Amino acid sequence: MTWLKTGVSWGWLFLVWPLLAWSAEPMLRGTGDLGVIVERGAGRLVIISTSNNGIVQRVDGLGDLSHASVVFSRDQRYAYVFGRDGGLSKVDILRGMLDKRIVQGGNSIGGAISQDGRLVAVANYEPGGLKVFAADTLEPVADVPAAYGDGNLSKVVGIADLPGDRFIYSLFDADQIWVADVHDPPAVKIEKFTGIGRAPYDGLVTPDGRYYLAGLFGEDGIALLDTWQPQAGVQRILPNYGKGEEKLPVYKMPHLRGWAVAGRQVYLPAIGRHEVLVADTLTWKETARIAVRGQPVFVVARPDGRQVWVNFAFPDNGFVQVIDTLAGQIVQTLEPGKAVLHLEFTPRGEAVWISARDDNKVVVYDTASFAKRAELAVESPSGIFFTARAHRIGF
Amino acid sequence: MTWLKTGVSWGWLFLVWPLLAWSAEPMLRGTGDLGVIVERGAGRLVIISTSNNGIVQRVDGLGDLSHASVVFSRDQRYAYVFGRDGGLSKVDILRGMLDKRIVQGGNSIGGAISQDGRLVAVANYEPGGLKVFAADTLEPVADVPAAYGDGNLSKVVGIADLPGDRFIYSLFDADQIWVADVHDPPAVKIEKFTGIGRAPYDGLVTPDGRYYLAGLFGEDGIALLDTWQPQAGVQRILPNYGKGEEKLPVYKMPHLRGWAVAGRQVYLPAIGRHEVLVADTLTWKETARIAVRGQPVFVVARPDGRQVWVNFAFPDNGFVQVIDTLAGQIVQTLEPGKAVLHLEFTPRGEAVWISARDDNKVVVYDTASFAKRAELAVESPSGIFFTARAHRIGF
Repeated sequence: MTWLKTGVSWGWLFLVWPLLAWSAEPMLRGTGDLGVIVERGAGRLVIISTSNNGIVQRVDGLGDLSHASVVFSRDQRYAYVFGRDGGLSKVDILRGMLDKRIVQGGNSIGGAISQDGRLVAVANYEPGGLKVFAADTLEPVADVPAAYGDGNLSKVVGIADLPGDRFIYSLFDADQIWVADVHDPPAVKIEKFTGIGRAPYDGLVTPDGRYYLAGLFGEDGIALLDTWQPQAGVQRILPNYGKGEEKLPVYKMPHLRGWAVAGRQVYLPAIGRHEVLVADTLTWKETARIAVRGQPVFVVARPDGRQVWVNFAFPDNGFVQVIDTLAGQIVQTLEPGKAVLHLEFTPRGEAVWISARDDNKVVVYDTASFAKRAELAVESPSGIFFTARAHRIGF
Repeated sequence: MTWLKTGVSWGWLFLVWPLLAWSAEPMLRGTGDLGVIVERGAGRLVIISTSNNGIVQRVDGLGDLSHASVVFSRDQRYAYVFGRDGGLSKVDILRGMLDKRIVQGGNSIGGAISQDGRLVAVANYEPGGLKVFAADTLEPVADVPAAYGDGNLSKVVGIADLPGDRFIYSLFDADQIWVADVHDPPAVKIEKFTGIGRAPYDGLVTPDGRYYLAGLFGEDGIALLDTWQPQAGVQRILPNYGKGEEKLPVYKMPHLRGWAVAGRQVYLPAIGRHEVLVADTLTWKETARIAVRGQPVFVVARPDGRQVWVNFAFPDNGFVQVIDTLAGQIVQTLEPGKAVLHLEFTPRGEAVWISARDDNKVVVYDTASFAKRAELAVESPSGIFFTARAHRIGF
């Protein structure tokens, strides 16, 4: 340690230290209690802490964040933001700054991060296909056009990660589900399932990473793939799921990604109806329907599965309802604010954060007492994403 | 910003900076990929990263760490270490230093952290009872002696957290299960379940925080409490679980805490037998028995539930076996090293870390290929705990 011998005086260090800490070095802190909220209009992320229900800082310059989604690096330091404009931004949530940003496509709707954290994949509408990037540098490592028919490219929707550095997604225009194995990029092994049903519009993976479900826009029912037994192919389940014979106006397509598995039941937003559907995850048969306030958009289980929280499409988008899964009925109706767009639970479920876009605020509720714990001023908030997602499969 | 006006020269900053970073400030980093390994003989923690399979640093001075267990703060910065000697240590894993240490009892076997992260609870053998501390300061906030009969105190075992800032645990000497609600300390509301079966020796909560199971040392079967419906009381399930009529020598009591729920099946270590028991979590009936190499100790599911990994008591404690839960049979037998004590999966399950005490090493395996990915030199390693536990219920 030669620097010890140079006779440096240490007195100045204590004078300068606070200044250094303030000016150059962000606070040393764990990242397990952090999250980000999308300020959709401003193209900005708000970094928050669930420990003090407070705002840490903001990061801007992220482009068009309408319908943006976010995944996290395995160390929970970086947020990858998928923008509607095809932008892919890597944000350092400890330093509160943009680490890197690329525009990788013309129109994208979401992405995912591989099980080992090395790869970030983006599902593109335009040009239709999957693009894969190195998580550290955002260098492109693989490009998988969603080609079908005579040189057509399909919009890609409903992407999720699967164990084994695979991504699963649906081809809206081609009625297909693809599984891309990117374990050894740039080589990509693709397994294709065709004729899965008309116009898959969104998809999700069960929390254990086993089942993939794609909602169909073009017909009733849901396409189901058991990824542990792909040789069995895609089945059709819940034949009454969809608009059905009585065509109802659909104000907003529900988000399947926000679905809820509680115990062995899955809670699904009915399309166009004021109902939440309940199905058994063993038989995949419908077991109940629960009448709710409006057309459900997000149907999300508290992490322990005892409650399922639901928000709604216009004109009921000022309400949130809570289903008690043991009782099988609604136990609470809340009015967090105007235009509720999203909700996110703290990892162990003691609180839920809800964005009210048209009131420019995010409201934090205690999930046991339903008391309001905090309100944060956030400009047109949409998606809320906590770092615990880094540890989950299928996000 | 008045300090800008003082005419400070900034040139020195760039000279001094690397030195500061090295000498005073730990590396800025996320905490989602960190973990700790207990060096039981040395009273030391090894802080590791699952991103590079490497050792970050060591922290010593933690007392007797035989049979030590660990929980994490909600921000994933601090590890709380429960030592056999009644020591409770709070370790700052970012700075790699002991933040605070108290000796709170004479003999303890484990602890838990509350859902909101404010409280740490220790289950004590001596004096028998539960002690609760503020997570930030380790100041005592509540003391719940495990009193029964004529002024006796029972050993407390099988502690786990429940939603709502509650802790559940068993009284070994009193044949009871207690639920302590510490939402408003120092007030503690206790709900007692008596006559639950002879000598509960360990317990666990299902991943959703709903069911508590206590293994019985004094008789066959398992005590089950549905914490969503406590009014139904404690039931007895798996009447053949235990030593049964044919009394076999038991080399090491299995650890229930490391149990496995995969899909809707639970995998339990049979006591004294070379078997893993499988039971349905809906009916709580036994559905299968899988013959394994030795007497199982830890039976742990990979996070996606497709595999269950098992280690064994002496003389088979050099082996680890892997059950494929879809096939219902063993698909791999590994020999990681001498005296395998514990195993821990990375949060999304691509790797597993295994401690081999008598070979002074921890081995990292790829769970898809079973290839050895790394070996770390660790002195008499026992428990391995990753920070993702901060986000889980029942740990």
